[in-house]
Amino acid sequence: MHILVTNDDGVQAPGLLALAQAMRDLGTVTVFAPDRNWSASGHVKTMDRPLRAREVLLADGSPALTTDGAPSDSVALALLGVVKEKIDLVVSGINPHENIGHDVTYSGTVTAAMEAVIGGVPGIAVSLHSPEDFHGLLDYSTAAKVARRVAQNVLEHGLPEGVVLNVNVPYLKENELKGYMITRQGLRLYRDALDARHDPRGRPYYWIGGDFPIGVNEPGTDYGALKAGFVSITPLQLDLTAREVMEEIKQWEWK
Amino acid sequence: MHILVTNDDGVQAPGLLALAQAMRDLGTVTVFAPDRNWSASGHVKTMDRPLRAREVLLADGSPALTTDGAPSDSVALALLGVVKEKIDLVVSGINPHENIGHDVTYSGTVTAAMEAVIGGVPGIAVSLHSPEDFHGLLDYSTAAKVARRVAQNVLEHGLPEGVVLNVNVPYLKENELKGYMITRQGLRLYRDALDARHDPRGRPYYWIGGDFPIGVNEPGTDYGALKAGFVSITPLQLDLTAREVMEEIKQWEWK
Repeated sequence: MHILVTNDDGVQAPGLLALAQAMRDLGTVTVFAPDRNWSASGHVKTMDRPLRAREVLLADGSPALTTDGAPSDSVALALLGVVKEKIDLVVSGINPHENIGHDVTYSGTVTAAMEAVIGGVPGIAVSLHSPEDFHGLLDYSTAAKVARRVAQNVLEHGLPEGVVLNVNVPYLKENELKGYMITRQGLRLYRDALDARHDPRGRPYYWIGGDFPIGVNEPGTDYGALKAGFVSITPLQLDLTAREVMEEIKQWEWK
Repeated sequence: MHILVTNDDGVQAPGLLALAQAMRDLGTVTVFAPDRNWSASGHVKTMDRPLRAREVLLADGSPALTTDGAPSDSVALALLGVVKEKIDLVVSGINPHENIGHDVTYSGTVTAAMEAVIGGVPGIAVSLHSPEDFHGLLDYSTAAKVARRVAQNVLEHGLPEGVVLNVNVPYLKENELKGYMITRQGLRLYRDALDARHDPRGRPYYWIGGDFPIGVNEPGTDYGALKAGFVSITPLQLDLTAREVMEEIKQWEWK
């Protein structure tokens, strides 16, 4: 089995290394990740400029590919042939923060996995629900083991058509995990606030600031699972049609 | 009513002007759009740099705001307070090409409308299914009238929670339109191909090239409607949970 590992934090991120090392137990691993951080940069297909791909070494001395494109570009380039060998699975992460609720369309981690599925290869996104106030090196060992378990399952069972797995792991030791929960996408409460400033020439500029987003702790959701100490596995579909409201909208005045 | 108009092609795009002019029949319009093209750049929240917002004039002499952020950043900045007046509706477009099938997560036009809905304001994305081989100035007049009809409906009925309207308009005269169809998201066939080149110093670089994507012409879908001469209106939901496969995935080995 040949597994492509990517992320949205850049090829030097420790979460990527932990993921690559865990995936090596399951097959051949190719790492192909952006050369910088692309957090919250969405599902990108770079078409207005060409992209570079070059070789670098990870912190454990193993080779990797890196690009000046987005996470989804890394996956596209790999599947289009920059990586010569057939790819059986794409795993993206490990993101240092959870990707839950509405995060999924912003997230470079998740949209890289979406790109794989659009390209016909199963895709898994893995994120760690690390403490908001944590500074320093995170421990990715539990999340890496979880990623391996999920990848093993996907390699064995495949993924249903048009479905991506969005995996979020609590920041716990392996023996503290309550188990795995198949969840629905929950609600995210963004607490963005405008931080308006003036540059040295007196002209205004704006930061999208505010507090870190929180989740709504509801049973059965991604965030609910994390808060209860479970790994959250949310199957996401690329068909966004809101089927339940189609009939209602048909009744509007369309003459 | 106060309508925010944005797009992903940049504030100078003729599709934006046509949309802004059509919306003025329904209320006060504020235009706030990126200062450059952001096609296929996904759902962005710019947090690693501050954003500018400045005033410009549209080609009809009316004032507009522009930013160096993404389409979704324009909406976020507006809703967070760069635009002081309460916003009742966000309309994004008119994109010169259709946004159908898997396009919806890549599309700056659609993700700008998603950003509105996440921010609690109804969002509509409007795109024109223009001929692939057309070069020159497109006629946005039919699409602009369609956008006004859709916006009128949304202002009257509101949108269901967490739902965005994705509107695609055939490139026809108004009297040639067959009508409106409420559709599901169809399938897109991307025909991307790697175009590998070498720079003047002999180093490789890669274009994501290939042919323009096509749609699968199936009845009931966005593309099927367009091909039959109907306006396609697809309600999209921000909850991507693939509910039908949750039970299947629960049966995997999770010990």
